[in-house]
Amino acid sequence: MDELEKMLEDHKEGKISSEEIKEKILELPYTDFGETKVDTFREIRKGLPEAVYCPGKSKEQLENIAEVGDRLFTRAEEEDFEIVRSVRDDAKFKEKARMIVLGDVEMDVEGEITVVTGGSSDVPVAEEAAVTLEEMGYSVERLYDVGVAGIHRLLPHIDFLRGSDVVIVAAGMDGTLPGIISGLIGTPVVGVPTSVGYGTAREGRSALETMLNSCATGLAVVNIDNGYGAAAFVHHMLKEG
Amino acid sequence: MDELEKMLEDHKEGKISSEEIKEKILELPYTDFGETKVDTFREIRKGLPEAVYCPGKSKEQLENIAEVGDRLFTRAEEEDFEIVRSVRDDAKFKEKARMIVLGDVEMDVEGEITVVTGGSSDVPVAEEAAVTLEEMGYSVERLYDVGVAGIHRLLPHIDFLRGSDVVIVAAGMDGTLPGIISGLIGTPVVGVPTSVGYGTAREGRSALETMLNSCATGLAVVNIDNGYGAAAFVHHMLKEG
Amino acid sequence: MDELEKMLEDHKEGKISSEEIKEKILELPYTDFGETKVDTFREIRKGLPEAVYCPGKSKEQLENIAEVGDRLFTRAEEEDFEIVRSVRDDAKFKEKARMIVLGDVEMDVEGEITVVTGGSSDVPVAEEAAVTLEEMGYSVERLYDVGVAGIHRLLPHIDFLRGSDVVIVAAGMDGTLPGIISGLIGTPVVGVPTSVGYGTAREGRSALETMLNSCATGLAVVNIDNGYGAAAFVHHMLKEG
Amino acid sequence: MDELEKMLEDHKEGKISSEEIKEKILELPYTDFGETKVDTFREIRKGLPEAVYCPGKSKEQLENIAEVGDRLFTRAEEEDFEIVRSVRDDAKFKEKARMIVLGDVEMDVEGEITVVTGGSSDVPVAEEAAVTLEEMGYSVERLYDVGVAGIHRLLPHIDFLRGSDVVIVAAGMDGTLPGIISGLIGTPVVGVPTSVGYGTAREGRSALETMLNSCATGLAVVNIDNGYGAAAFVHHMLKEG
Amino acid sequence: MDELEKMLEDHKEGKISSEEIKEKILELPYTDFGETKVDTFREIRKGLPEAVYCPGKSKEQLENIAEVGDRLFTRAEEEDFEIVRSVRDDAKFKEKARMIVLGDVEMDVEGEITVVTGGSSDVPVAEEAAVTLEEMGYSVERLYDVGVAGIHRLLPHIDFLRGSDVVIVAAGMDGTLPGIISGLIGTPVVGVPTSVGYGTAREGRSALETMLNSCATGLAVVNIDNGYGAAAFVHHMLKEG
Amino acid sequence: MDELEKMLEDHKEGKISSEEIKEKILELPYTDFGETKVDTFREIRKGLPEAVYCPGKSKEQLENIAEVGDRLFTRAEEEDFEIVRSVRDDAKFKEKARMIVLGDVEMDVEGEITVVTGGSSDVPVAEEAAVTLEEMGYSVERLYDVGVAGIHRLLPHIDFLRGSDVVIVAAGMDGTLPGIISGLIGTPVVGVPTSVGYGTAREGRSALETMLNSCATGLAVVNIDNGYGAAAFVHHMLKEG
Amino acid sequence: MDELEKMLEDHKEGKISSEEIKEKILELPYTDFGETKVDTFREIRKGLPEAVYCPGKSKEQLENIAEVGDRLFTRAEEEDFEIVRSVRDDAKFKEKARMIVLGDVEMDVEGEITVVTGGSSDVPVAEEAAVTLEEMGYSVERLYDVGVAGIHRLLPHIDFLRGSDVVIVAAGMDGTLPGIISGLIGTPVVGVPTSVGYGTAREGRSALETMLNSCATGLAVVNIDNGYGAAAFVHHMLKEG
Amino acid sequence: MDELEKMLEDHKEGKISSEEIKEKILELPYTDFGETKVDTFREIRKGLPEAVYCPGKSKEQLENIAEVGDRLFTRAEEEDFEIVRSVRDDAKFKEKARMIVLGDVEMDVEGEITVVTGGSSDVPVAEEAAVTLEEMGYSVERLYDVGVAGIHRLLPHIDFLRGSDVVIVAAGMDGTLPGIISGLIGTPVVGVPTSVGYGTAREGRSALETMLNSCATGLAVVNIDNGYGAAAFVHHMLKEG
Repeated sequence: MDELEKMLEDHKEGKISSEEIKEKILELPYTDFGETKVDTFREIRKGLPEAVYCPGKSKEQLENIAEVGDRLFTRAEEEDFEIVRSVRDDAKFKEKARMIVLGDVEMDVEGEITVVTGGSSDVPVAEEAAVTLEEMGYSVERLYDVGVAGIHRLLPHIDFLRGSDVVIVAAGMDGTLPGIISGLIGTPVVGVPTSVGYGTAREGRSALETMLNSCATGLAVVNIDNGYGAAAFVHHMLKEG
Repeated sequence: MDELEKMLEDHKEGKISSEEIKEKILELPYTDFGETKVDTFREIRKGLPEAVYCPGKSKEQLENIAEVGDRLFTRAEEEDFEIVRSVRDDAKFKEKARMIVLGDVEMDVEGEITVVTGGSSDVPVAEEAAVTLEEMGYSVERLYDVGVAGIHRLLPHIDFLRGSDVVIVAAGMDGTLPGIISGLIGTPVVGVPTSVGYGTAREGRSALETMLNSCATGLAVVNIDNGYGAAAFVHHMLKEG
Repeated sequence: MDELEKMLEDHKEGKISSEEIKEKILELPYTDFGETKVDTFREIRKGLPEAVYCPGKSKEQLENIAEVGDRLFTRAEEEDFEIVRSVRDDAKFKEKARMIVLGDVEMDVEGEITVVTGGSSDVPVAEEAAVTLEEMGYSVERLYDVGVAGIHRLLPHIDFLRGSDVVIVAAGMDGTLPGIISGLIGTPVVGVPTSVGYGTAREGRSALETMLNSCATGLAVVNIDNGYGAAAFVHHMLKEG
Repeated sequence: MDELEKMLEDHKEGKISSEEIKEKILELPYTDFGETKVDTFREIRKGLPEAVYCPGKSKEQLENIAEVGDRLFTRAEEEDFEIVRSVRDDAKFKEKARMIVLGDVEMDVEGEITVVTGGSSDVPVAEEAAVTLEEMGYSVERLYDVGVAGIHRLLPHIDFLRGSDVVIVAAGMDGTLPGIISGLIGTPVVGVPTSVGYGTAREGRSALETMLNSCATGLAVVNIDNGYGAAAFVHHMLKEG
Repeated sequence: MDELEKMLEDHKEGKISSEEIKEKILELPYTDFGETKVDTFREIRKGLPEAVYCPGKSKEQLENIAEVGDRLFTRAEEEDFEIVRSVRDDAKFKEKARMIVLGDVEMDVEGEITVVTGGSSDVPVAEEAAVTLEEMGYSVERLYDVGVAGIHRLLPHIDFLRGSDVVIVAAGMDGTLPGIISGLIGTPVVGVPTSVGYGTAREGRSALETMLNSCATGLAVVNIDNGYGAAAFVHHMLKEG
Repeated sequence: MDELEKMLEDHKEGKISSEEIKEKILELPYTDFGETKVDTFREIRKGLPEAVYCPGKSKEQLENIAEVGDRLFTRAEEEDFEIVRSVRDDAKFKEKARMIVLGDVEMDVEGEITVVTGGSSDVPVAEEAAVTLEEMGYSVERLYDVGVAGIHRLLPHIDFLRGSDVVIVAAGMDGTLPGIISGLIGTPVVGVPTSVGYGTAREGRSALETMLNSCATGLAVVNIDNGYGAAAFVHHMLKEG
Repeated sequence: MDELEKMLEDHKEGKISSEEIKEKILELPYTDFGETKVDTFREIRKGLPEAVYCPGKSKEQLENIAEVGDRLFTRAEEEDFEIVRSVRDDAKFKEKARMIVLGDVEMDVEGEITVVTGGSSDVPVAEEAAVTLEEMGYSVERLYDVGVAGIHRLLPHIDFLRGSDVVIVAAGMDGTLPGIISGLIGTPVVGVPTSVGYGTAREGRSALETMLNSCATGLAVVNIDNGYGAAAFVHHMLKEG
Repeated sequence: MDELEKMLEDHKEGKISSEEIKEKILELPYTDFGETKVDTFREIRKGLPEAVYCPGKSKEQLENIAEVGDRLFTRAEEEDFEIVRSVRDDAKFKEKARMIVLGDVEMDVEGEITVVTGGSSDVPVAEEAAVTLEEMGYSVERLYDVGVAGIHRLLPHIDFLRGSDVVIVAAGMDGTLPGIISGLIGTPVVGVPTSVGYGTAREGRSALETMLNSCATGLAVVNIDNGYGAAAFVHHMLKEG
């Protein structure tokens, strides 16, 4: 709240009234389109561009959001992209990651992250994490489909995983991969359960519980299918380093 | 139902009436104590001694059951044992397995089974399986506390596990061990989820789901904490061989 | 890990470096298409061809997988089959079982399995098990729609079921059939809950619980609708005999 | 509401005011002890004595309830009985059924009911049903511990079950017995799931679902462990006949 | 099992062999189409025509079932009807009840049933019950949309409900109506939870629990949306009277 | 029930018979279309127009309902509106709120309500509340998309929220907003969980629990997505004032 | 945040530094005992005394909290009371409500509330609400044990309930009472589900859902057993009037 | 696996046989007590001392574990401590954190962590995290009982929280605190749901879901009540820096 201190100083010097302070606070943090408030201030406060979750957003809402600033859109369909591109020429569609990238969100960051998946159906979630990190400027390696039905698929890569700053592991079905990796290396692991599976997989809730119940240390998790959330968490970890 | 055929023959020859056939069927399969019917016939029909689940059984019920035939009691407390011993001198208490063994249930069987646990808290469930199999006459190896937080604990034993006829794996918490073992060997694996854990472990239901969701082949499961059930299934597998 | 021993020997004799050992391990187990890794080594390690779960796989992923080796595809739609056939002439579509069979997966096996269903809506799941076993070379009998609303439908078949090496029972709704069969015969029974039903059937989870809660011995279960899993488990049981 | 008509007549004739009608309605149906209102009118309205569920009732509440009229108490502990007997000499304790019977609740009824249990641990719930019906004057047969692990235990009794007016079946664990019986006979069956079991039995909820999912016709269910509820439903069925 | 006794007599007199008895049992109960077994014997055993649950049945299965005997089809779509009619001219479509009636299933029965719904969206489930009973020959009254948001809608009908032999109440949302009706009358009530509702209604599971938790006596329930099951249970109740 | 008193008086004076009283009660409260009963009396009894929940209503049902009186339709699709307008010229479609308004439901009310949403996807639920209140005649302010990822979005509005008579807060995902607002102001808050979210959001059930578990005082909740219910509750609160 | 404005003024005039403002904010709202922070400021901000939830609080924590200001303790056991009284002579124990009242929390309020319960086991929860309101100075009427098994118990009281400003209804089991009352009166109803019940009552969660699913208008709910929460919400409603 | 490389070298030089390599791998990682295997190797592999979860461990198991190496015991009761101290004089009991510390586990680490709780009942879980970190050598600040019922309790501390390297937040009930903090600062936040709460809190599962559903970035979670897990994850994050 450095801005607050600045404003207090200005207020003291009579430059702004207490009413103006309230207005300022109201004004700064976002651009207000009524139904939608765009968090233009977020980059400063949080150190990463805002992500917009597309499902359920109306055409009008998407257009308003796209007009202001640089940001990411997640779970974007082809038609969402068309709406966004109609107001922003610089929009890019990352199809495999189901994302739209607006402008240049790259930041001054440093770090190497490996994104791993248990199976090939977990790839879209992993890509959401990988693309988010790449857009911010991180170096990302992908290691896909090394799931545990045959732990031998994984073992040869352990040294490589140890070399990363962080490992993100997306896994559905039984969700065992993050715990196994975390049990073998000292690098922090962020687990992303995915909704891949059937029967008792319960759309990712069983995988989520497997990760939480793991007694491997060095593992924390984010919501089911939340690739962006994993990337954002990793960014918070690394930008401090 | 060879008995049925025999009875039909006797009936034809006028040795027994149709009424007598009904009575016979009523009579053969169990000894009737009113509230409790003891399945004395089971050994013939199923090829293994009946197991009695102790919790919720009254003193009178336990005494009645103990009077007739050789069998196993599961989830037995010290006080259950005292009731049973009061009517049967030959009762043995297997404390670690929480079981009472009545008489000599050994059968003419052959086979080597390894019983594995993820952690040391899973031991009572594993012992229920191990003791049941040993009492029937099988050769049982124990491999306890080799859980996946550190898959390296497990790997050196893989060759040994391959040498067993069947592997029973009891695991609570995230329940990942049966799937990992099953992914590495061709031997059939019977998974027994245990109620060990806290938080999202949901008293073994999360471990159960992990095992069912595993894409490792060669793995089937029984109910949570059901060590006896795993042993009985293994017996059905092996006695055919 | 006989290969490991061989490689250690070669290493000792200076034939391969420790780096080469790592590479070898990396190389052997699968063919790597990036997003998808095909487990060409599995047949040797596990003794059965890999199954590919079609839902959620992209066209590109399916094509890559189809290119290498002989295997089975489960939950396949007509359009999946067309993709697979476009790269493999020898692909066969088993419509009732929703499976694609690639090449000749038959193995040197022996055994008689009966596949049973409670109702006629459970047939696709049962067929997945039956076709998998038949493709591997087992002898399979089908006994469909003998569900318990009228246990009399089942009784005449009991002798026949006793003659099988294993019985697989697929049942949805209340899922009682596997327990009833298992209570009557000494042959091992593998229960497959199906997602058939409505209301409290909870898409197969109630049937699953019925099977797990059964006090009939000789019954183990696999995941809901997992016909392939049941077949694979049976294969592991029988190939040892 | 014949009383209503009577009161309307009296009101018309000026015998009672509209205020008095309100009071009358207030007065008739129960005796008011503040926290507890005893439904003295219920026998007339519903045709069966009120049952009082003991758990959670304070000493004062139990005493108040015991003072007025003849009724049944369910889930009663020894100490509940002592409280009740301190104000009513005629109280009887039915220990196996966990019930207290106050006075003479017998009614002019006719009918033969068989009460069945799957296992011996289901007996207390079955006894709650059996004692309730016996106290009202019905003829009750008990057939306990004939559960389905060995359907042969059940078959010889089928003719007998057919001879009953209604069959009540209490079953925990997998809860399959009511559906099996109902599939074999035309007599209506009332299923009572019990909280007996462990693991996926979920304190009777799995047994409840099994009964609801059964495709056997002629089966309806009441709440878990609700033996009294089954008896009351049977009474409503039979008193009309 | 009067047939059994007859067969035993014949066997004794050498008219049939024990093999023939087995065959007979196999033959009598149903017509076997492989995947589908039609329970032609059910009417004799259970006293009501078999109901066929349409969802998930293939065209071939429906045709086979339609060929033999008189019966009911539930949850039928227009296209199911067309398949059935293609093999049976006498098929009738009861659209509001989503049922197909094959031939003349009327029986020699007597009884008056009132079918009640809480809301107008519960009508299809109620009609399934009402049509089933009418087809069997019962007299059915309908009382729809009298749900509890305004108990005053219900009160004037209480006397009428008392005049029925049984009351079936279909209710979704909070599912309170069956308990309220049952608390006011001595007539037995069969509750049918429906999947109508949103949010915490959980597709009828909340309504189901409300009915089971009700402390009103004289209420038993069937599965969610199971109008046929309620009708069948009522038939079992009344045919005995 | 002032009408009751009136009728009792008339009855006393012989103006109406007891039969007529029953009929009157039957007649007054609604217009009966068989499957649908329109609660024309509700406005008098409850002080607000009836709302009709569109999903699952047939064309015929909607037409019948639309014919009588002024009311609101919720969760209306474009095609529902066309059905309603075909019988009522004065129907208005409130698209954003998914509502149809029939005639002039405005009442003599007073009060200022602020409707808040956490995100822009919660707007339809919020609009359902806002439009209902506006149609009745209340003054409504909207404050949308001020969710907690950045509590700073909310703080500047606190004084404004304090000025309202009641605050309605619709929030999905983690559902934290109502508790935060309620912790900061003394004005009563009505929380409306929405089904917006994915993964562990469980279609609004997680948001619902968050609101119920909040230790902020002055917060009560209605069902998931039930904007109308929140508005109706607020109306009951304010009309008394 | 009038204090904020005051402080800004002081800051402008140089009376306090920006550092001091931060400290002030830190200081004002509570008294800090390390592990426990007592919200001495709450009465001003929220207009009602803070409630302390006793379970899980250590002796030291309770003593610290008791030392400062007037407040309420909920779910208090006898031993909690002894700890509190050891530091505060003026502590009162409200046993039936399981509450401790510290000092004189009465406020300048006006309003009549009726607190209703379905059964006598719901009384402790109802008393928590009633005592909280009485301590603040409201007039409270109690109407206990009028549950719906016999709606006739309730009807005579409807006029009385209409005369209250708000009605609080505590109900466990099926939880139908709040919806029924709310369907009959225009007064706002606050539902409090209680954990009373067994089987499918799921410790109050079924009752909670019944209340949320009710289509009666004018009903909002608080958490299970949260009598204090209901009272606090009512206070927020009425203090505005 | 540098040891592996070393061993391969030795093998090449004939210093050790391939059999010896297997034995070595078997030997290194743990000390084997049969039922319990102590992971003496973990410190090297994972960079932190092993934690032993006490509940369910037998006396013999605890003694064996305590004999070897320096480590932490979690969820320890007084009696667990006595067992451990009987074999290790240097054992320390951290009562508030329910932990036993064996020997000197301090490591060469650097970092400042703030541990926050929502309420005072969350303190034991927070202490488990705090003590674990302190024992390893980190600098830990505590900020307890700043829960969201009054977000004003939290705001003055925001600058302080920003100064930490990581923030751990333990919260039960509605579990909103981690999301709120994470929305305000750029520092990574590790959320620990606690089992504190009642009713819909579902023993911490509701708090867990709140954290996962939060749209605040920079937040990841561990299992319910898993303070040690949070500390271990933080250690993995910071030791890399």
